[in-house]
Order: sequence, then structure tokens, then C-alpha cells
Amino acid sequence: MDFAPDARTTEITGQVHRFLHERVLPAEPVLDEQLAATPGEWGFRPVVGELQAAARAEGLWNLFLPDAGPDAGAAGSAHADPDADPHTGPAQMPGTRRGAGLTTLQYAAVAELTGWSPRLGPAAFNCAAPDTGNMELLAHFGTPQQQERWLDPLLDARIRSAFCMTEPGVGSSDATQITTRIRRDGDDYVISGHKWFATGAMNPDARLLIVMGKTDPDAPRHRQQSMVLVGRDTPGVTVVRPLTVFGYDDRDHGGHAEVVFDDVRVPGENLLGGEGDGFAIAQARLGPGRIHHCMRALGMAERALALVRERARTRTAFGGPLADKGVVREWVAESRIELEALRLLVLKTAWLMDTVGNKEAMTEIQAIKIAVPRAVQRILDRAMQVFGAAGVSADQPLAEMFAGARALRLADGPDEVHLNSLGRAELRRP
Amino acid sequence: MDFAPDARTTEITGQVHRFLHERVLPAEPVLDEQLAATPGEWGFRPVVGELQAAARAEGLWNLFLPDAGPDAGAAGSAHADPDADPHTGPAQMPGTRRGAGLTTLQYAAVAELTGWSPRLGPAAFNCAAPDTGNMELLAHFGTPQQQERWLDPLLDARIRSAFCMTEPGVGSSDATQITTRIRRDGDDYVISGHKWFATGAMNPDARLLIVMGKTDPDAPRHRQQSMVLVGRDTPGVTVVRPLTVFGYDDRDHGGHAEVVFDDVRVPGENLLGGEGDGFAIAQARLGPGRIHHCMRALGMAERALALVRERARTRTAFGGPLADKGVVREWVAESRIELEALRLLVLKTAWLMDTVGNKEAMTEIQAIKIAVPRAVQRILDRAMQVFGAAGVSADQPLAEMFAGARALRLADGPDEVHLNSLGRAELRRP
Amino acid sequence: MDFAPDARTTEITGQVHRFLHERVLPAEPVLDEQLAATPGEWGFRPVVGELQAAARAEGLWNLFLPDAGPDAGAAGSAHADPDADPHTGPAQMPGTRRGAGLTTLQYAAVAELTGWSPRLGPAAFNCAAPDTGNMELLAHFGTPQQQERWLDPLLDARIRSAFCMTEPGVGSSDATQITTRIRRDGDDYVISGHKWFATGAMNPDARLLIVMGKTDPDAPRHRQQSMVLVGRDTPGVTVVRPLTVFGYDDRDHGGHAEVVFDDVRVPGENLLGGEGDGFAIAQARLGPGRIHHCMRALGMAERALALVRERARTRTAFGGPLADKGVVREWVAESRIELEALRLLVLKTAWLMDTVGNKEAMTEIQAIKIAVPRAVQRILDRAMQVFGAAGVSADQPLAEMFAGARALRLADGPDEVHLNSLGRAELRRP
Amino acid sequence: MDFAPDARTTEITGQVHRFLHERVLPAEPVLDEQLAATPGEWGFRPVVGELQAAARAEGLWNLFLPDAGPDAGAAGSAHADPDADPHTGPAQMPGTRRGAGLTTLQYAAVAELTGWSPRLGPAAFNCAAPDTGNMELLAHFGTPQQQERWLDPLLDARIRSAFCMTEPGVGSSDATQITTRIRRDGDDYVISGHKWFATGAMNPDARLLIVMGKTDPDAPRHRQQSMVLVGRDTPGVTVVRPLTVFGYDDRDHGGHAEVVFDDVRVPGENLLGGEGDGFAIAQARLGPGRIHHCMRALGMAERALALVRERARTRTAFGGPLADKGVVREWVAESRIELEALRLLVLKTAWLMDTVGNKEAMTEIQAIKIAVPRAVQRILDRAMQVFGAAGVSADQPLAEMFAGARALRLADGPDEVHLNSLGRAELRRP
Repeated sequence: MDFAPDARTTEITGQVHRFLHERVLPAEPVLDEQLAATPGEWGFRPVVGELQAAARAEGLWNLFLPDAGPDAGAAGSAHADPDADPHTGPAQMPGTRRGAGLTTLQYAAVAELTGWSPRLGPAAFNCAAPDTGNMELLAHFGTPQQQERWLDPLLDARIRSAFCMTEPGVGSSDATQITTRIRRDGDDYVISGHKWFATGAMNPDARLLIVMGKTDPDAPRHRQQSMVLVGRDTPGVTVVRPLTVFGYDDRDHGGHAEVVFDDVRVPGENLLGGEGDGFAIAQARLGPGRIHHCMRALGMAERALALVRERARTRTAFGGPLADKGVVREWVAESRIELEALRLLVLKTAWLMDTVGNKEAMTEIQAIKIAVPRAVQRILDRAMQVFGAAGVSADQPLAEMFAGARALRLADGPDEVHLNSLGRAELRRP
Repeated sequence: MDFAPDARTTEITGQVHRFLHERVLPAEPVLDEQLAATPGEWGFRPVVGELQAAARAEGLWNLFLPDAGPDAGAAGSAHADPDADPHTGPAQMPGTRRGAGLTTLQYAAVAELTGWSPRLGPAAFNCAAPDTGNMELLAHFGTPQQQERWLDPLLDARIRSAFCMTEPGVGSSDATQITTRIRRDGDDYVISGHKWFATGAMNPDARLLIVMGKTDPDAPRHRQQSMVLVGRDTPGVTVVRPLTVFGYDDRDHGGHAEVVFDDVRVPGENLLGGEGDGFAIAQARLGPGRIHHCMRALGMAERALALVRERARTRTAFGGPLADKGVVREWVAESRIELEALRLLVLKTAWLMDTVGNKEAMTEIQAIKIAVPRAVQRILDRAMQVFGAAGVSADQPLAEMFAGARALRLADGPDEVHLNSLGRAELRRP
Repeated sequence: MDFAPDARTTEITGQVHRFLHERVLPAEPVLDEQLAATPGEWGFRPVVGELQAAARAEGLWNLFLPDAGPDAGAAGSAHADPDADPHTGPAQMPGTRRGAGLTTLQYAAVAELTGWSPRLGPAAFNCAAPDTGNMELLAHFGTPQQQERWLDPLLDARIRSAFCMTEPGVGSSDATQITTRIRRDGDDYVISGHKWFATGAMNPDARLLIVMGKTDPDAPRHRQQSMVLVGRDTPGVTVVRPLTVFGYDDRDHGGHAEVVFDDVRVPGENLLGGEGDGFAIAQARLGPGRIHHCMRALGMAERALALVRERARTRTAFGGPLADKGVVREWVAESRIELEALRLLVLKTAWLMDTVGNKEAMTEIQAIKIAVPRAVQRILDRAMQVFGAAGVSADQPLAEMFAGARALRLADGPDEVHLNSLGRAELRRP
Repeated sequence: MDFAPDARTTEITGQVHRFLHERVLPAEPVLDEQLAATPGEWGFRPVVGELQAAARAEGLWNLFLPDAGPDAGAAGSAHADPDADPHTGPAQMPGTRRGAGLTTLQYAAVAELTGWSPRLGPAAFNCAAPDTGNMELLAHFGTPQQQERWLDPLLDARIRSAFCMTEPGVGSSDATQITTRIRRDGDDYVISGHKWFATGAMNPDARLLIVMGKTDPDAPRHRQQSMVLVGRDTPGVTVVRPLTVFGYDDRDHGGHAEVVFDDVRVPGENLLGGEGDGFAIAQARLGPGRIHHCMRALGMAERALALVRERARTRTAFGGPLADKGVVREWVAESRIELEALRLLVLKTAWLMDTVGNKEAMTEIQAIKIAVPRAVQRILDRAMQVFGAAGVSADQPLAEMFAGARALRLADGPDEVHLNSLGRAELRRP
């Protein structure tokens, strides 16, 4: 057992750390100005493009994708392997192309740093959800044609994408309840359904919508679903309205949309993987997605702690700096302890994903999915309290981070579903 | 000891309950539409005026003010009583006029009901903060001229008001740190300072700003401050910008403003109370203010529980309604227990305020100020979890209520200041 | 609504308060000495008898029993009323004799005071469990002959008693799982079964064992059980061994025994109530029992707070008294808030039991049964922490109180059973 | 970074695991019998000696000591190195002899396994506190003569020892408050003071008492204290009485004693280290001591989980096994998450101690000292609840483990002292 990071991690982390502090954090007020100047617009503002250009120039690009080899794309045919375990995530994805070649463990520290600036950090390095998850799916399950049409422009940050899974009418954590139908009609698929919280879909640059629906409601429960790739402009696609998370519309990146699919017709070649693979593909997407969320959430918490340290040293009340108040010390101590313990759990999970695979790491993925967001929520809550009124306002990033962490407890299924599942597994241990 | 409500409470509560369900709750979607149609505007929308007219017609008006007698105004001179205990709050305010004559205890159940609809409930009955606290101050400490100019139109809902106490640069819970200066200059006062989170001040109808500042920085620590009444249009007053709370701008009622006072000159008669009374007046305002906040917060929690009950009965996942899931049952049970216990503590506090006075009830007021908002925050957090993505969106009132409850933990000083004070008092008990 | 105690409460509370501080608390070290001098003995030590004599002389006797009239015993036949609601508890018990005539609400403050000294307080006033519950059952459901034989000596503190319900092999909170059999055989009942945690049963003075078992396993689930009165010396009764609670054997009062009933034969007249009434009688016993436990637990917490106050004022560390440490202030403040809120909930529950009956107060009884012991456990845990090593030792009463509070979370069924039931009821509310 | 245990860890853990399940756990009821047969006796019972013989025969002996080399003792003179960093703990102790040569990290898994059986596990392998810490001190700071007289028999388990630091009259976490005096008198030291919670000191086999006191109250605050080695039979040493933790006297190993030192005279050569080194030596002892406590505590929690799994599968209530109840699943899931995260933090701390030294690992040591015992307390509390009445009794090891975990939150200073210190350090980070 060895807790020292390897050389590659140390190097890339140092690079990203410098980029974060020299470029990303100073760009936050610029983004605020650009947002204020463009009400009603959805998607990246110019400052993101500038950061992306700079990051790309430094080789800090698509860091989330494991395979960096220039010919990696050629192996894309691996997606056709019928024996591929759909639970196997990105670490084992043979067909990925143009990624940075980091292992999940190596990427962890990088992703944490991007979490310091949720609106700009992930975007700067083309590592922002939901594109990352969508790119992984395309890299792993996409045909060469699908990859050429959608993955290449995503890897180039020329377009963006959305993932349409959650439905307003049912508890989507129970995949058997999904009501969207994908019917085969000749060479085409015809999609009818109602989705919401399609993150990023308000952005007109989100050219690709990946839609989960049922191709065969009578199949075994985890073979009923399939995924299809739908171009944004396909007739029948209606982006109904934006949704907010707390009071945030998140229009800096593309918001969260309610989307109706009304007899949307796409060619059969737009199927991702095979018919009935939808559930397995979704699972494959969720493992890395969850750990990435956790990594970034840890970064949010570290930023909050850094802000609290600065505040506590400079702000006074009742005869001394906040840093001398017992309750502030207790809070930062508790926060530090939680962060250190949970970061290790995230890192071990990453290591398991790299060494034994996402499926074998399922228990740990569930554990961090449950434990990290709520701990980060607590840490942010305490930080807001230290900042007083400023803490809940937009003058500090805390409240918006809080909303993000809070939403993570619902994303990919409410924590309680995972807690129950984890408990059942524990009780089955010998 | 008797836990049965008196007849007046039962009667008025029934009346308000009916009004809430028949008029206020159905008006919420109307408000949403009116807000969507008027971006960038601050203040009440037409639907509020309609509700106010209906409530007033039913006699449900200014329920927060204790004295209903038609001649009550004549006793207004009581504010000049030099022996008046500034800690004594509304229950003992002899000079109040045109209130509904409810005791604090009787008002409690009413205020809780208004909390079911934070944007419309209090406003409908002219019982919305910060006007309520400001009206109490004017009723108790205002001269007849001040009352005529400001209190009467506030009681009539012809104007609104703001309270300018918190400053961005200092921890305002420590009143000695306030930097705003109020200098005597001939017959006038000249105010220079920087305030923020002046709730309601974005609304152009907020004609009156009550400003806390220091008239004598060298006086004993609680005699340094004074309060002056400042008309919104007085030269030197600049409403700089709105602030958000968890992304919400609260423009339905007047938001939260940053306000700069740059050599703002008002006549000496605009002083509220005497020079050096500022701290005592603020304290007098805070007691009722805090209990009203708590009462309404309980109403938010009850509404959340009602929504959860409905949801749990109708939503299914993994083979049954949510109402059959152990975790949902535990949550509502825990919420119910917390609510019942804390409501009793709020009611007892109200009873103490009515019987022994606000000052004697200080410990209990601190206790509920600490305990109620955080419990309500927990209850709302659980409720959002039951609702999934809808819970954090604007399709349910939960997230906005959550933001409100969270902000209460900072309002009137962070809880920790009160916790420390309460603990010190407890440790001094014999 | 009125939060002021009535005159009777004020008077008796003052009397008990004085007795507690003048006699009971000073007797604690005497008890310790007497216990040290009599290892291996079970039951009251002489100091208890002295306290009882003094309390009785002051009229502080059997305070838990509602009816004080000298002729009350004459109404004992009321137990035969076939329409009596078995859920109706002591407040409505017509047949009680020689009680102090306090309502449940009036008794609450008294019971809380007895909780300050768990080993001596309740015993001094003949208000100690399990005798109280057993006396209530005999007063309400006993025949005149049963009352004469068992109730009179219990009311006189000439004997003690035990309640044999919990079984080692099954989860006894689910009454349908009880395995003890009570078979009719001619004029007799024959009992076979295995009980444990029969509190008090190690004491040879515990002459009466009330045993719950099944007379008809095929009856509807809540009509299968009956209760019989068993004399300690009946052949077939074996007190197997004492059980400990966190290392405490509680031999000062009679401990907790494992008892085997091996074809124990008693006359048919020893049946308490009718055949099949066992579950209902148990329920009738539990309501008052639970609230009494809660009242006493509040007293334990108040004593802990009093000890902490004294300690915090006199103990120093790192440059000042503990009373100046932020964390100690927070703890006592949190404890005070919890205590005030929960006491009100207990009092309201008592008021409901007095006014609408135990059955209608079931939700509140469940709520306090869940909320009070765990809050008291937290308060005691903090208090131990303030006392350091002394806190967990026998030099302070805290650890033993903690063990008692912890056990309450299991007594009469684990809290989770009640939480689930309470949640289900809440979700059924309209 | 690599989370896989090394070969030595895997091997020794397997060995100890087998020994635990084949020998130690089955010996628990034997110990119970031997304890029941020998009331009033203090110290190991015969079953411990049998286990020790078996463990020693397998080479599972003194596993806590890092250096296994046969000549290691020769390096004992290193204790005289005036430049030795007293914060440097066992991993760097050059003078250790006959240890098993495990690193702290390698020992972690072993120590966790011993924690499964707190009364027998550590003792079986001669790894029980306080002997371990005392042996470390002697190995590191002892002269060859001291080592020969005390360390050798301790390593052979021929004698036991106690550590006398805590005093009843002062908060001993603040070392400046220690009142025990150690005066130089000619060639001797004369000790006067009052100690308590000297764990193990009731055992007559505890031949050595290591006593902390002040040699120079006027020195700088951390140079006032020294440590001396005192033979149990030295005139003036009085073991006053045993203390209990909750209701446990812990007489299976030697209990916790109050000890008075009344002008106890020992030769000057009995000084451990130099005059004024007492605080530094205590610190050196605490680092390893704390992490060992944490490791064993994790083992207690794992045993509790194992017991809960077995119980939940076999016990039924309300229509099904406990394993199907949502609340039980949540509990074991929460417990599992906490355990996994905290174990990693403990392991990382061990790794830091091995690689950068105990002093550099101080923050992490504080973190686990705070976080592990309270988490284990929670886990044990839940486990007791699953077991019902049996859970708080001696029929299961849970309540006794709970008492142990609870006491850890006070041992070596209450957690709050460390929390404050950790918070201060965090706030000083750049």
C-alpha cells in the first residue's frame, strides 16, 4: 500500500493547479460580466473559449479520456465486441481516441481541481458533464460512423450534447418505469416521450441528444431499454422550457431542459450499441460519471475551505478574528477530517475501477455517490455560515456550489436507493 | 397548564385557513405567470393587490399588530415615555393603531398559516417582513408626525419599507462594528454608509428606509447607535444592485438591495426614538421579528409535509408507493416530531412575550431562532429528496422555501452568536 | 393556551423539590456504601426504607396513581366493566385506590424531579417502575381479591413486583411472536415459557410476577395473549440469572432477570382481566409507562446540566474555566433547547392523556418515546465529555444514567418500530 | 498510489485472522467462566496464558514493535542520543528489540483483527495497552539497565505495567496543570501526587508504574514534566480503589486504578529520558497509542457488523427477517461507508508515520483520534439497537465495546482539545 501519487499525477496536477489559479479563477468575474451582458442566452460565453484555447495549447485537453494514443481511434471497432461487459467503464475502453491517457486514479486529482470553479474549470479542459459521459459512451459503444459524426466534434469542443434519461412523470431511478418509447419502424426508430432535467439541452450548441427509452417493454427488466442518438434539429424534438435548480438556471453552460419527443424519427444506424443494451450502457456511463461528480465535489469543498480560511483570518467580530472562535475552528477541523477520509475513499474507488473494473467497484462507487455530496453539502453549509449574508449571495461561489452538491444527492437516483442497495449487499456478505 | 387554543385563535385560524386554501394557494401559479411576464420589475404583482383587497374585506388585515381599538392611535404619545423599556416589544406597545388586537400567542397560528405560501401569504394580510417590523417600530417609537407620514400608508399597504442594518464590510451581528455614520449637522442628520441585504429595497414602492448608524462612536457600546427614517428619494441614496439568495432574486416582493448613503441629509425630526436608542430599538424589533420568522417557517415545513404526503401516496418506485418505503416513513415521522416539539416552544415563547415581556423571553426567543430554521431546513431537505429533481426545481415551492429557511440562520445574526450567548446564560444559572 | 402550571402542581413540585435536595441527593453516597457492604444482594437497601418513611410522612406517596379518595377502593369493581376501553390509562382508571390524585400533567413535574436520582428518587415516593405499571394494572383490571392480595401490599411498599413480557428468542415488540404458553387445565392455568429482562425480578421481595403469554395462538393476532399473576414461589418458576445493562447489574433495586416458567400452575382466578385481553392490557400499561420514563429521563438530563454548570464554573483548562470554552457553551445551549422543546411535548402528551385519553394520545406518546430518550442520551454524552474520565466512572451518576437512557430506546419495543408506525400514520393524514 | 496490501501484510493478516477465529473468539466464553469463578481478582485469567503460548509458538508475538532483529537490543544506546526527536515514534526507534518488524502500516490490519475481541485479542499477541505504549517508551528511551529490568519481562509477558498520567483534580489534557511533583533529593527522586485511571494498575502483576510529574514547575511549559519508573512495591505507593467505565470494572485485565504516591522514593537511575523530557516522551507515546486504539476500534466495528449481519438474517419481526427492513439496511450501509473511509484514513496515517514520521503525521493522528472512536460508537449503537435487549447485555460484546469506544473519546485528552488544535492548524494553512 502506498499513498504517494505517481509522477504523472504529480506533474499533471501541478500543471492544472497553476492553470486553475492563473487563468480559471481570475476568469470567474469575467464570466459574471459576460452573463450579465447576455440575459436569456444559453451556453458558453466567450471567456470559456479563451480558456479552452489556452488549456488545449498546454495539452490539458480531454483529460478524462483514458487513451491518448494517436491511433487509438483505429481500435474503435472494439465497440462491436459482443462479449464486452457493459459494466466495464472508461479505464477498459479500447476504442477511445485522443484522450489524455490518464487512469481514473490519475484523473482524480485533476478533476478535483476543476471542481474549484464549477462553471469554468471542467469546461476549460473539455471535461464538463454531460459531455464527458456522452463522449465515453460514443468512444466505447459508438460505431466509427457515430464517432466521426458526434465524438470528433465533441472532443474538439465544436459541439455539445445532452443526455435525456430522467422523466417528469416517474421515478427514473427505477429504470423499469421509463415511459419513453422507441419503436422500430422499417429502417428507422420513432421516439415518443417526455424528458426533463436534460442538462445542457437549452444550449443551441448541444447538437446531440442521447435518448433512453424502451424498445421492448415486454423484455426482461434490464433488457427493455435502448439508447438512440438524436440530432437536436430532428423534427418532433421540442425543447419546452428551462428548469432551475434552487434559483439557478445555469445558463452559463446550457441549463436543464424539459424536452418532448413527439414521433421523432431517426435512422436505425443511430442506435447506440444494440437493442436492449440501454440499461447496461446507462450503468456503464454512471460509474465514471458518479466518481467524476465526487471528485469535482471534493474540489468545491476545498475551495470553500480556502475561502473560509481567508475570511476567518481577516474578519473580526466580538473582539477578535473569526479564526479565534471555537466554533469556526471546529467547523474547519470537521470539514478537513471529512474531506481527507472521503478523498481516500474516492481514490481507492478510482484505483479499483482501474484495477478490477467498474463492475467490481460498484459498492465503492455507491458509497462515494452517497457520502461525498452530502459531506460537501455540510462543508458548504458551514462555509456559508462563516460568510454570513455574503455566503448565500452570488458574491461568493458557495451557494451555487451548494445547489450543485445538493442536486448530486438526487442525480443518477436518490441516495436512498443506493443506500438500500448497499445495505442489502452488506447483509449478504458471509 | 392548558394546551387548547382559545376561542379567538380557533376562529381567526379557521378564517385564515380557509382563505389560504381557497385564495392564496390557487394564486401561486398566477403569480408565476405575472412574474414571467414582467422580468426586471421589482415589487408586488397585481395578484397581491387582489388578495389584499379580499383579505381586508374579511377583516384579515394587519393581524400582527396587537391593538385594534379605533382610538389606539391617540395613545401614540406613549412613545415619548422616557421610562419605556426599549426591550419591550409589540405586546406592550401602547401606541399601536389599527392592529387586529391579537396577542402574540393568538397570532402564532395565523402566522404559521401565512408561511405555507411565503410569497403570497404574509403579503395578502399585510403581514410581510420587513414591513411588519418597521410598522411595529413606528407604532411604538414613532412620533405622531412620523406615524402619520409613514405608518398610516404602511398599514394601508399604500407603500412599503426597508430596514437598512447589515453592512457588507463588517460582521453586523456585533453592533459595535457598524460603520455607517449619522452626524448631526444643524437641524439635520447627515448619513454616510454602505448597507446591503436591505430586503424589499429594490421595490420602488419602498418609500421608507429605516437606517441604523452611529451617532456617537465614543458612547458606551450599546448607546452609540441611532435610527433615522430616510425617504427613498432623498438625494445621496443610491440603490446599487440586487443581491440573490441561492439564485433567487425575490423580485416578487422587492428583493435584497445593496444601498449606499452618500451624505444623505434628513431633518432632525426623522430620528426614530432618541439619539443612542438605536441598539435598543433594534433589539425591540428583533424579538417579534424572530418569532414571526419562526412561525412562518413552521408553516413552510407543514406545507412541505403536506406535499410529501400527497407525493408519497401517488408516486411509485421499485414495486410500490413511496409511502411504503421505510425511509420515507422515518422522514415524515422525524419531521412530525420535530415540528410538534418546536411549535410548542414557539407558542410558549409567544405566551412569555405576552405575559412577562419580550425581554424576559429573550432566552426562549434565542432558542427558537436557533432551533426552528435549521429544523425546517432539514424537513425541507428531506421533502426535496422525496420529490427528486422536481424538488429542487421551481415546479415545487420547496427549494425556494429552503433558501428562505437557510437565510434565516443568518438573519439577525448567525445562530452561533445566539448559541454562545444562550450557553453563557445557561452556565450562569444557579 | 396557558403555559403556567396550576396551583396543585406548583405546590407538590415545590414539596418534592425540597425533599429531593434535602433528603434524596444526600442519600446517594449512603446507598453506595450500603451497596458496597452487601455484594450479591438484590433489592432495596435500608436507606430506601428511611426515605420512604419520610416521604410517606409528608404525604408524598403513590403520586403516580390518580385517585386519592379514601373510598376509591370501593369503586374497584369498575374493573369488571366489559365495555371498558383497555387503551384507557390511569387518568381514567375508576378503581384506583389511595393514589395521590394527581393528573398525568400534574404528575409530570414530580416524575421529572424523581428522575434526578434514578436509584432513589422514584423508590422514595413508591413511584418506581415496574411497580407503578403493575399497580396501575391491578388497580384497573384486578379483581377485589387480586387487589387485596397484591395491590395493597404494593401500595404499602411491603412487596415488589416484576413484569415478564420480553423473551430472549423472539422480537417481543411483535406481540404475535411471543412463545410463552398459558394453557387452561381444569380450574388452573399452566404456564410454560422463557422470559428475560424481567426488571426487578432478582429481588426476593418481588413477590408478584405478571406474565404475558398466549392462551389461544389461533385467535386474531391481538386476542391471542393473556396475562396471569404468578407468585414468586410457585413451583416451576426459576430465576435463572441476572442480566446487565452496560455492565450495571442494578442490584440496588432488583436487577433484570432471566426467568423460566416450567409448567407453572396457578388458579384460574389469577387471570388478569379476561382471556385474550393480554395485548390490550399491555397497551394500557405502556402509555403511562412510556410517559413516566420520559418524564424521569428529562430529570436525568436536568441533573446532568446542573452538574455540568457546576463543573464548567470550577474546572479550568488551557487558561480559563470550561465555562468560557465555546464548545461547552454550545453544548449546554443545545441541551437546553432540546430539553425545553421536548418537555413541552411531554407535557402536552400528558394533557392529551388527561383530556382525550391515552388512545387518542398514541401518536404523541410514540413521539416522546422516540425523541426523549435519544435526546437525553445526547445530553448525557456531552455531560460525560465535560467531566472527562470522571464522567464515565461511578464517581458521577452520568454513565449509569446514560445506560438507562440508552436502554429506554429499546424498552417497550425499539424506537424504529414506533418511528415506522408514526410515519405510516402521518402519511395517512389527509 | 496503490491500495493493495503488500505480501507481508497479507501473510501476517491471514495468520492472525485464522488464529482469531480458531482460537480467540472461541476462548471468549471460557474467559467469562473463569471471570465468574474468580470474583474480586484482577488480571489475566488462565485462558490468556494459553492463548499467549499458542500465539508465541506461531511467531505472533510483540507484533506492535517494529524491529525484529535479534541484535536490535544492542542499539539501545540510541536512547542517549541528545538530538533524538522525541516526537519520533516506534517506526524510527532504533533500540527496539525482539519486535515483529512490522511497519505501522503492516501492523494496522493485524491490530484491527485483535480489536474483534478486545479482552483477548490484544492480550493473546502481547499487544495490549498500556503495555504496548510502555514497552515502546522503554525500547526507545530506556537505558540498557531499565530495558533489562522492565522491558525484557514485559516483552516476555512475565509482568505487566501501568501508565500514571491522568489526575483526578485537574484537566490532564493540559499538561501544565499536572500537580504530581517529582523532586530530586540527593541521588533519588521523591514523588508525591494523586493519579487515577491508571489502566491495568489493579493487577498485582503490573510491576512497573510509569509516572508523569513535574520536576521543574518553573521551566517552560513543555519542559516542566519528567517521567520516572516506579516499582509497584515501592513504599508510599497506594493503589486506592478500582474505577469503573460505565458499569465495567475490566478486572479481566487489570482495571483502572486510583493511585496515590506519598513521598515515593526511587533511585535517580529510574528517570526515563532526561529531566524535562516528560511532555515530549508522552507525546511520543501518544501517536502510536492513538493509532493503535483506532485500529482496534475499527475491528470492534467490524465485529459488530458481522454480528448484525448474522442477526439480521436469522431474526424476524413483523413478517420478515430484519435484513429486509429498510432501516437495518440503511444502518449497515452507513456503517460500511464510515468504516471504509475511516480505515483508509487510519492506513494513510500509518503510512505517514512510517514515511515522514509521527511528528509530521500529527494532523492525521488527531483526525483519526477524533473521527474513529465516535464513528465506532455510532456503529456499535446501531448494532445494539438491532440486537434489542441482548445488545445492551453481556450476552453480546457490543455494550462493553461501546463503553470502550466511548472512553476513547476522552482518552489522551477529550476530542474537543484536538478538534480545536486541528482547526487552528487548518486555519493557518496558506
